[in-house]
Amino acid sequence: MPQRPATPSNPTAIEASGAFVETVSLKPFQSGTLDGLTFTVKDNIDLGGHKTSFGNPSWRDEHPAAIHNALCVDQLLAAGATCIGKVVADEFTYSLDGESHFFGTPLNAKAPDRIPGGSSSGSASSVACGLADFSIGTDSGGSIRVPASLCGIWGMRPSLHRISEAGVLPFMPSVSTVGAVANDFETLNRVMRVLLRSGIEDTARLERIVMLDDAFHIADESVRDAAKNMIKRMAKRAAITLEHAGFSDVADRDMDLSSCNEDALRNLQTMEFENTVGDWIESYKPKLGSTFSMAYGNVKSFDRTTVMESLDLCERLFRGINRFLKTGTIICFPTTPTVAPPKESLNTMEAVLDFYDRTMAVTSFSGAGRLPEISAPLLSIDGCPVGLSFAAAHYQDEFLLKALRELLHP
Amino acid sequence: MPQRPATPSNPTAIEASGAFVETVSLKPFQSGTLDGLTFTVKDNIDLGGHKTSFGNPSWRDEHPAAIHNALCVDQLLAAGATCIGKVVADEFTYSLDGESHFFGTPLNAKAPDRIPGGSSSGSASSVACGLADFSIGTDSGGSIRVPASLCGIWGMRPSLHRISEAGVLPFMPSVSTVGAVANDFETLNRVMRVLLRSGIEDTARLERIVMLDDAFHIADESVRDAAKNMIKRMAKRAAITLEHAGFSDVADRDMDLSSCNEDALRNLQTMEFENTVGDWIESYKPKLGSTFSMAYGNVKSFDRTTVMESLDLCERLFRGINRFLKTGTIICFPTTPTVAPPKESLNTMEAVLDFYDRTMAVTSFSGAGRLPEISAPLLSIDGCPVGLSFAAAHYQDEFLLKALRELLHP
Repeated sequence: MPQRPATPSNPTAIEASGAFVETVSLKPFQSGTLDGLTFTVKDNIDLGGHKTSFGNPSWRDEHPAAIHNALCVDQLLAAGATCIGKVVADEFTYSLDGESHFFGTPLNAKAPDRIPGGSSSGSASSVACGLADFSIGTDSGGSIRVPASLCGIWGMRPSLHRISEAGVLPFMPSVSTVGAVANDFETLNRVMRVLLRSGIEDTARLERIVMLDDAFHIADESVRDAAKNMIKRMAKRAAITLEHAGFSDVADRDMDLSSCNEDALRNLQTMEFENTVGDWIESYKPKLGSTFSMAYGNVKSFDRTTVMESLDLCERLFRGINRFLKTGTIICFPTTPTVAPPKESLNTMEAVLDFYDRTMAVTSFSGAGRLPEISAPLLSIDGCPVGLSFAAAHYQDEFLLKALRELLHP
Repeated sequence: MPQRPATPSNPTAIEASGAFVETVSLKPFQSGTLDGLTFTVKDNIDLGGHKTSFGNPSWRDEHPAAIHNALCVDQLLAAGATCIGKVVADEFTYSLDGESHFFGTPLNAKAPDRIPGGSSSGSASSVACGLADFSIGTDSGGSIRVPASLCGIWGMRPSLHRISEAGVLPFMPSVSTVGAVANDFETLNRVMRVLLRSGIEDTARLERIVMLDDAFHIADESVRDAAKNMIKRMAKRAAITLEHAGFSDVADRDMDLSSCNEDALRNLQTMEFENTVGDWIESYKPKLGSTFSMAYGNVKSFDRTTVMESLDLCERLFRGINRFLKTGTIICFPTTPTVAPPKESLNTMEAVLDFYDRTMAVTSFSGAGRLPEISAPLLSIDGCPVGLSFAAAHYQDEFLLKALRELLHP
């Protein structure tokens, strides 16, 4: 059960969080495993009768209101949960920082002078502020994992396409997933099992925990040390021997995690974003926020004719990673290499590149592997939260949830 | 190599086929494994500088032209192929017959008085008429497999989401795939390996061929007998013992293949179609063809709040089917239960239901399993072609292609 009662009817707290685009009240269709829980929905996921903004006011104005809820929303309502709000998404969900030009910066409740992370910024904020029991969002390059890590809550990005994307705005079809955040593991577990439609308990046993060395190296020293200490303690308590592996061992290629992001996944993501969002921007010339405009400049100058090798590389990385991650194995690493940067500190190219290149190197691992990944709010650096991530093989979502429970309660 | 030279510059043949929405000429970016091959593109897949109609003129008029090619089109251009045309899709791709109210009925070259099948009707027709070496289309409930079967050409629907859907109009995210048709197996194989980004040859050996009994039972007697004779001959030549299994054995549930369609997959498909297309129709009130209007009436009256059990069932069927289809196994059945019905014969509710219910029962197998399936043009009933299908486990696309080559050239 959630530790803090959700207070959807507290307008002052809702206002102060800056997380909500609007409050709604969608009652459950029937009773189910999510009875009594409230949730919010990221603003790229349809709620019937409401406009979906995609984090950009021109997109909102140019499109009619949705008529049906997204399929994933209906799944939650059919399981007994109540939807209480539509929450802020970064512009076109193309960001990891949560500082929206148009919709503001939702409150990072545990580190109020810092960014919440994005693009599921309102999802993480509304949950971390105790205004909802859980929230659904989307994750392509880290958009659930990063805000979960920086806000100190639980978050899960499931295996690619395990959850229906009907009624979710298309973004990067080869990496985008629907997922969820919650204040406690048991709530996350219950929600994910509804969305994953897991009728059957996974029978595999947790046998092997591997530390992904590259991600530890990329992290700040303080994050690295805290993550190492925590995973060592957890493994010891569960009586499981820790192993180490570099990305080159895991992926069976002579390359590192930064190269996984920069030479493989990023090209695929950029091409797909051009198709799903870029064409619309070029046709409708919407008003764009300044930070998004800068990022989009790189998208526009991209040469689509010369990057097919990196798409082939994505496929080989997927195979290598999943050969390594045999049944019974989970792999562990800091969700993000840093705690949340202070608000408005990503204002130089150097600061932006440092934050994005390091963060996306780490998040590219599950992206390339199409893996389920859970960010657990187990680390704290000088009072600022940061997540410890656990991933398992493609489609081993139920095993990962079960393994996490074993690790938490050995 | 293709048996018949493609003649993209033959306007009379192009006109006579009724397959083309427009001719184009997109030159390859560079030389590659598809050098010298020409292809057409279904009209729900973007070509930069052209409108994508989705088979409905109002959709075309309400949306701007695409700016970028779909990612899959760029993959083919980067591998040396030349795009020569945009070809007819059934209305909103929500059909299996190929008789479009707005864009006509593309020619079924081998059975000219019969329907070509749909919704990738123009793809199959342009290839079967010898006007292109191959074509790319989409398949959710059979939209590549059915026209490939009825037009007597090769067609492959790959594993769910193996090929990027960026630049492809969203339809049914949990079942839709991009795939291809071609006149000969070697062309299909080369094209699919580009789209699948298969850098590595699969090493698994074909060990087991299973006949899916339900699909044979559903088929017309003539189709059933022809399919049985052919697969027996192929298995014998390859020195592999044939096995039999009913759907209840394969899926490990007490249900048959018709129930797989009617009680599980169809509800998921209907809900997703409501999100991706239904909302747009309700908002924009486009002009609709009469046949589509009838089908859409059923979509509109659908109760989304009561079908969650059937979505859970889809997930359990996926697991059961893929437990059965171990490495080394392919499963075989007639692609469609009938040859192509005569043109304009689907004009009574009885005829429509017979064609759709039986066909979609068979096609639901790979839909529920998220399987790769190849329809091979190996059967002929009184001069009319019909396909024999081979499917393998989810993500075993390369194995399936390799197994097919072994069966063809033992």
